[in-house]
Amino acid sequence: MQNNQTPSGMPIHKYSQYQDTFDVSLPDRTWPDKRITAAPRWCAVDLRDGNQALIDPMSPERKRIMFDLLVKMGYKEIEVGFPSASQTDFDFVRSLIDENAIPDDVTIQVLTQARDHLIERTYESIAGAKQAIVHLYNSTSVLQREVVFRTDKQGIIDIALAGARKCREMEKSIPDTTVYYEYSPESYTGTELEYAVDVCNQVLEVFEPTPDRKVIINLPSTVEMASPNVYADSIEWMGRHLNHRENVLISLHPHNDRGTAVAAAELGYLAGADRIEGCLFGNGERTGNVDLVALGINLFTQGIDPQIDFSDIDEVKRTAEYCNQLPVHERSPWAGDLVFTAFSGSHQDAIKKGFEAMAADAAAQGKDVNDLKWAVPYLPVDPKDLGRNYEAVIRVNSQSGKGGVAYLLKTDHALDLPRKLQIEFSGVVQAKTDEEGGEFTSDAIWGVFQDEYLPSDTEAEKWGRFELQSTRTSSRMAGSVELTIDLRDRDTVSEATATGNGPIAAFLTVMRDRGIDVTLYDYVEHALSASGDALAAAYVDLQVGDRRLWGVGIDADISTASLKAVVSAVNRAIRTSTPDRELAGV
Amino acid sequence: MQNNQTPSGMPIHKYSQYQDTFDVSLPDRTWPDKRITAAPRWCAVDLRDGNQALIDPMSPERKRIMFDLLVKMGYKEIEVGFPSASQTDFDFVRSLIDENAIPDDVTIQVLTQARDHLIERTYESIAGAKQAIVHLYNSTSVLQREVVFRTDKQGIIDIALAGARKCREMEKSIPDTTVYYEYSPESYTGTELEYAVDVCNQVLEVFEPTPDRKVIINLPSTVEMASPNVYADSIEWMGRHLNHRENVLISLHPHNDRGTAVAAAELGYLAGADRIEGCLFGNGERTGNVDLVALGINLFTQGIDPQIDFSDIDEVKRTAEYCNQLPVHERSPWAGDLVFTAFSGSHQDAIKKGFEAMAADAAAQGKDVNDLKWAVPYLPVDPKDLGRNYEAVIRVNSQSGKGGVAYLLKTDHALDLPRKLQIEFSGVVQAKTDEEGGEFTSDAIWGVFQDEYLPSDTEAEKWGRFELQSTRTSSRMAGSVELTIDLRDRDTVSEATATGNGPIAAFLTVMRDRGIDVTLYDYVEHALSASGDALAAAYVDLQVGDRRLWGVGIDADISTASLKAVVSAVNRAIRTSTPDRELAGV
Repeated sequence: MQNNQTPSGMPIHKYSQYQDTFDVSLPDRTWPDKRITAAPRWCAVDLRDGNQALIDPMSPERKRIMFDLLVKMGYKEIEVGFPSASQTDFDFVRSLIDENAIPDDVTIQVLTQARDHLIERTYESIAGAKQAIVHLYNSTSVLQREVVFRTDKQGIIDIALAGARKCREMEKSIPDTTVYYEYSPESYTGTELEYAVDVCNQVLEVFEPTPDRKVIINLPSTVEMASPNVYADSIEWMGRHLNHRENVLISLHPHNDRGTAVAAAELGYLAGADRIEGCLFGNGERTGNVDLVALGINLFTQGIDPQIDFSDIDEVKRTAEYCNQLPVHERSPWAGDLVFTAFSGSHQDAIKKGFEAMAADAAAQGKDVNDLKWAVPYLPVDPKDLGRNYEAVIRVNSQSGKGGVAYLLKTDHALDLPRKLQIEFSGVVQAKTDEEGGEFTSDAIWGVFQDEYLPSDTEAEKWGRFELQSTRTSSRMAGSVELTIDLRDRDTVSEATATGNGPIAAFLTVMRDRGIDVTLYDYVEHALSASGDALAAAYVDLQVGDRRLWGVGIDADISTASLKAVVSAVNRAIRTSTPDRELAGV
Repeated sequence: MQNNQTPSGMPIHKYSQYQDTFDVSLPDRTWPDKRITAAPRWCAVDLRDGNQALIDPMSPERKRIMFDLLVKMGYKEIEVGFPSASQTDFDFVRSLIDENAIPDDVTIQVLTQARDHLIERTYESIAGAKQAIVHLYNSTSVLQREVVFRTDKQGIIDIALAGARKCREMEKSIPDTTVYYEYSPESYTGTELEYAVDVCNQVLEVFEPTPDRKVIINLPSTVEMASPNVYADSIEWMGRHLNHRENVLISLHPHNDRGTAVAAAELGYLAGADRIEGCLFGNGERTGNVDLVALGINLFTQGIDPQIDFSDIDEVKRTAEYCNQLPVHERSPWAGDLVFTAFSGSHQDAIKKGFEAMAADAAAQGKDVNDLKWAVPYLPVDPKDLGRNYEAVIRVNSQSGKGGVAYLLKTDHALDLPRKLQIEFSGVVQAKTDEEGGEFTSDAIWGVFQDEYLPSDTEAEKWGRFELQSTRTSSRMAGSVELTIDLRDRDTVSEATATGNGPIAAFLTVMRDRGIDVTLYDYVEHALSASGDALAAAYVDLQVGDRRLWGVGIDADISTASLKAVVSAVNRAIRTSTPDRELAGV
């Protein structure tokens, strides 16, 4: 069986192997025999390295939401900015301190280049904090020495030492703040190891680490340039050659250029590191920083407490998406919309049998199923532990070659359903096919969709407790909207008025006034391009009582479409919770 | 410096460490001392494992586009389906063979469970192919033995051997096809190693590997359950214990549950594997299969020929997004929209100096810069080698805390620009700030945006060679649209008519009739939710002559908005190529 692959013609002569330039040879490495048994110290750098890689850097409001999220999840060391480089960052650090937003057990961290005036400004930014980590860096790589700084090895060491000394001097200016230090030989992965350890050791002499005041030596893969085992070798080598090792915390800061940042962090931690810096969902420069969510939940699935709360991963995801204005991908580890789905029949069958076996074992042992070891094929974690559900998704019509449910809705009706709604609706269709059997045509699927989400206008097919009959909005300045609607509630039509920062918010108030406990989780809308008459579709992900479900609205007015979507979800929730439609007054 | 982290309260008692269940101990491992020096044999499984994880499985048309892409890129082994499990897959395999779509040096691969009637159907599907790999699998894990198959170790071996013998028997039914074999102990990562190697060795005795007809033993991390070094240890162990090793190709099939599939593939390859199965951009069940793009370009950046052509990564990405109906994330390795951007001033400065140093070195050595080793900080590859560009993106107004350009356009004007347009427009704003200095207000940014993409309706500010004055469309059945427009071309207004599968396609024909060489790369549209009057915005990414750029159109009719967007891009291209606006007839 011949290998028929041929040269690609790509210009490989422009590149060379990492190990031809950097000698990281460690035949007596010990890390591959080690195991992870406890969580590392975490440092979340979403507000600095993450933020600086956004097209739309976070506003102060979004920064604060991110900070509060990180605190709530359990991160105790949070890099909050580069205050000397940006007035926004400076103001944000000040606001955290001045508004007493930093819990006593949380230490903020601020980045600074090794330049006198930047260091002075950095200390100004943290005055009044109970404690802070000053994170000093300068670039040490061969390439940056030659191309950017045009200086020799000693020149770079002088920059680092001058910066470190300036830091020590500035301590006196903020006597009420306990200052800890972190030093990064930036572009570490492009630096000769012997030289990197020399710079770090000389900086350590200035910072004088003690047991009470350990110093963090952060070894970033500023650019990920080699496979993760090579990074791990380098970390073990550094650990052997750093002075004051007992009073030094070795920190990792992997970037993901090669797609192996999670592995680099895990193997580097095996290799003796104490601490890991990263961002939620791997936000950060270029391909991102290492993903703190993947790292933390990887520990959890091995029975190791991450010391971070991931029990509502959807809330973490939504907040990060709002703050970063970037989506979390459908296949992002442990958090993507598709990671707890099974499409294949054999997978679904095995999962079903796994659930059944666990229930049977629990019954036989007289235990709660949550006291057993998790053991379900194709599901490496119980989705419930992360606030998610397992979703079995059938592939209607895939046998007939006509494509899936969502694809048919898109091509035939210009509806672009959010992934989670696609999954929900597949379940609805599945129930129908189980009931009625056979294959479903595109028209039949459209019929099911309309009946489920878009109750027909014809009286005969109309169902649902609520119906929107007219809407008027009046927008005031300062982001406030007054909404007036005519709403049918069972058989009675009445007018209702409410105010909110948008029409949906106002409408949710109306619903709550009617005793419907409703929370908005997600909202998506788009134009119906295929129809050409500028209709818009709106989709809402709502919690209604104890039910989480989607609603859909279509209207020429996007704002009305969104209210219709809320009505759709609320009516569906009421229908499900009251099997007899009569009970719901329909 | 105390560690203040506290227990998360998550139910860690439900999970245990992988190595407590599976003993993978290999103290004399050799892989960490090895280096990768050549590409593995690749097998692309987008049409099988990738396809089965899509909400909308590919239609036959999309399957064919994916197959042709994989062939064009250089993949020589392509898993094209699970023909016995799906009529669609069966028909697709038949169509490839019957339409002679498979080049002589490409081997298709088909998956089958180890059950007689499925194997028979599998051989039917490949009859007439020059050669094919029959990929036989059955599940071997502890969990599946107990929960799904309810049989013992011997029972599972019997299933595998019966399947292998049936395959050998079926060979006679298709004497003109050379059949190769692949066997997967599915859920290998949940299987005891001693047992896994026993099953494989017994199957090998049936398949009788020879030098000319090697047998592939595929060791999937069906679910990724441990860190990648543990997977690599297991692969090295298997390599030592498999019989007929010289005639066996060890194949890896990593999934990405823990976010370490790329590392698992690389370390497993170091550990002695010969071959890797994966999908473009890591599509596949749950968190996906290993990303073939990351793996291939990782080799390229080390000066190793991937034997796959990645020189137009955007084309690969667009095609995969179309076939999978799933986006490639902005930070996907080597291919995401943001991976060749730099937002930070210090990064931009270093990159600029890197480009300058390379140009100076080339001049000094009398060489072309493309003959030098690539050496630019923060850019681990020359974006041009992948058909991309480096983009320096400034962060307008980030100093003022008002947020970025794109954020302002979104919050104040309800325009949700695609990432690449955000980056393009940042460059336009940057040119203005360089020219005029100072900070830009939201109003000023909106003014720049309108002038650049939405030439004003007022005669004084109007510019651009073309202007759309009216449109009429008439849609026929069979997806064909007839478009009639009144178009101003310089000072002359005339009527034009064209037909296409949509209004944009028809309009591009009109443009080409006017001598404008134009290709559509991307099209995005959305409703302007904030305005409430149901306007729609359309964005197009066009190649116009030798320029690649975006256009924007806003209109109450989404179809007209898209045509306006094309006009916007074409006018911009003409303006840039003719600095004096008079020359363009404006």
